[in-house]
Amino acid sequence: MAVVGGGPIGLAVAWRCAARGMRVSVYDATPGSGASDVAAGMLAPVAETYFGERVLTGLLVESAARWPGFAAELAEYTGLDLGYRTEGTLTVALTSDDLAEAERLWTYQRELGLPVTPLRPAELRDREPLLATRLRGGALAPGDHQVDPRRLVAALRVAVERAGVTLLPRPVRDLTELEAAATVVAAGCGTAALTGLPVRPVKGQILRLRAPGGATPGFRHVIRGHADGRHVYLVPRTDGEVVVGATVEERADLDVTAGAVLDLLRAATDVIPELTEYELVEARSGLRPGTPDNAPLLGPLPDRPEVLVAAGHFRHGIVLTPLTADLIADLLATGVPDPALAPLSPARFGTPATGAGGPGLGGTPGPDDGTTR
Amino acid sequence: MAVVGGGPIGLAVAWRCAARGMRVSVYDATPGSGASDVAAGMLAPVAETYFGERVLTGLLVESAARWPGFAAELAEYTGLDLGYRTEGTLTVALTSDDLAEAERLWTYQRELGLPVTPLRPAELRDREPLLATRLRGGALAPGDHQVDPRRLVAALRVAVERAGVTLLPRPVRDLTELEAAATVVAAGCGTAALTGLPVRPVKGQILRLRAPGGATPGFRHVIRGHADGRHVYLVPRTDGEVVVGATVEERADLDVTAGAVLDLLRAATDVIPELTEYELVEARSGLRPGTPDNAPLLGPLPDRPEVLVAAGHFRHGIVLTPLTADLIADLLATGVPDPALAPLSPARFGTPATGAGGPGLGGTPGPDDGTTR
Repeated sequence: MAVVGGGPIGLAVAWRCAARGMRVSVYDATPGSGASDVAAGMLAPVAETYFGERVLTGLLVESAARWPGFAAELAEYTGLDLGYRTEGTLTVALTSDDLAEAERLWTYQRELGLPVTPLRPAELRDREPLLATRLRGGALAPGDHQVDPRRLVAALRVAVERAGVTLLPRPVRDLTELEAAATVVAAGCGTAALTGLPVRPVKGQILRLRAPGGATPGFRHVIRGHADGRHVYLVPRTDGEVVVGATVEERADLDVTAGAVLDLLRAATDVIPELTEYELVEARSGLRPGTPDNAPLLGPLPDRPEVLVAAGHFRHGIVLTPLTADLIADLLATGVPDPALAPLSPARFGTPATGAGGPGLGGTPGPDDGTTR
Repeated sequence: MAVVGGGPIGLAVAWRCAARGMRVSVYDATPGSGASDVAAGMLAPVAETYFGERVLTGLLVESAARWPGFAAELAEYTGLDLGYRTEGTLTVALTSDDLAEAERLWTYQRELGLPVTPLRPAELRDREPLLATRLRGGALAPGDHQVDPRRLVAALRVAVERAGVTLLPRPVRDLTELEAAATVVAAGCGTAALTGLPVRPVKGQILRLRAPGGATPGFRHVIRGHADGRHVYLVPRTDGEVVVGATVEERADLDVTAGAVLDLLRAATDVIPELTEYELVEARSGLRPGTPDNAPLLGPLPDRPEVLVAAGHFRHGIVLTPLTADLIADLLATGVPDPALAPLSPARFGTPATGAGGPGLGGTPGPDDGTTR
């Protein structure tokens, strides 16, 4: 079988399929250079739960539950450190308006049975003394963990090679180039051009800071801030890095703009003032593969049952990696779709106007094709 | 003769000396990689005139007056575009506190006879419609021009080679390595280690923005802003670039910090809100060669008359390039020092404790030695 796309989804699918005895080839000219290279790696079913996305929330919870086992298995299989951290996520609100907005979300999340515990400002600062003194409140989601996506991809590459998968460093411009009996399209934003499915690029800009003098960041939780109406997240890594993200822009260019960097830095330093002393080591943008309902496309193409899609993960590709890989590998191995796949079928948006196969025909490809970078 | 340092000062000295018939070698492992690579290139005697620096102000005015001729000669000699622009500089004040601070400076500058014309907000926006509507006032310094320092260095390199100067791409760690009858030390921050003189690194952080879509920036003047107590300058280039600067920090590291980028972007977008849409293409830091009185060191070393110093230009290396080159070349050609050199003598801070020659002995070298980068 062939997997088109060497990001975390494609590699994890390949690893799981190889473990089930399939012969797998992964096609990607530049594996890991898509959205995962810019992703923060928050495994955050609670903090990523928004009104009106119940199907997606169920997926996030289920996949997050598989992460501890997946991370342990991958780390043991490869001997590599994934930067997997389980301190949990603190959401904090700076103003009373921010707090009102956040509290509505926490109430909704608790109604769904998700673990989220409101904390007073003093309790927040007991946990993270660097938090701004002017915070009005916050909450802890103890099960919202993190992983370093660049380390994840590096480990998955080692894992698939060890499992006998062939990595072919070349782009796929048309699925008819492939001669495999089964194909999995895990090409992120490039999926639109390959399949005609409605995957659109959603730009995100992020920063990477580094603690001065090679130190570890002075905070351990992932911090999500509601800061004067701006949203920001701060992800501390043990190697000293802090990822600050992210804009969500309906654009397909990769420019890093002054306004986005200003907004991210302002919100970040409003939440943790000491970050002004941190080094700014990277300002980048990437394109998330968005879908009309923010949920991924998992399952066969309407007209071509031999082509499975595993794409459109939008903001949730990293957390959804283990579940996606298991569902797709099981489907390929057994031919029987898991009931969880039903609401995620690529057919839910109708049959692509052009059928599959023609690059750029009827899809909404961005200028940046995940399969060819 | 030997020139140590291939920045604008060293190259211009070499060019002027070669024109007077001298045989010149310039030593620099990485010419143009020092302060000039980060400099904005404001030729701003008025806007750079501060209380208590009358000697320096006189130099700035005199050298700025030589710039039109120098730029025309260099451009004609090399056929290269220097990015020399003569639209002038607008200083603007955002709040009434900013305006009070700026007005004290304008009064002082006018008392010295410098050309500076206060303008009302409407007059400012007539000249530059992109300026923020909330500006409280400003002033025009029509004679404060600009040049692109990277283009300047590129042109000077062509000019010196055309004039027969030998460029030796190697570092000088000790002046005793050189066998020239006369030596000019134009090594920026590296001058301290070579001579023992009190040249100290003063860190500056700058940003480069770029107008979207390859356009020319929407403003033509150099803009200097007093913005809620922060100082910022915005230098628009015809190639679409806008330089935003600069911090002045008594530090010798080259880290780009989140706090500095935040402050520069905040002040810049407060003055010209449209800059939020510009691309952030570079965030850099450099080390200015500072001296105890902010004026350069020009003239012979106290104990070694065959070694001339042309260093310590602090924030003013680009504007002072033509005058420095003329004064040093004349001194070498005639043996007679111009009276203007008297207050700039390297001897004014006493004899260096160790004499010249020993790298790092008695000086205050930064980690970043302009001669070796």
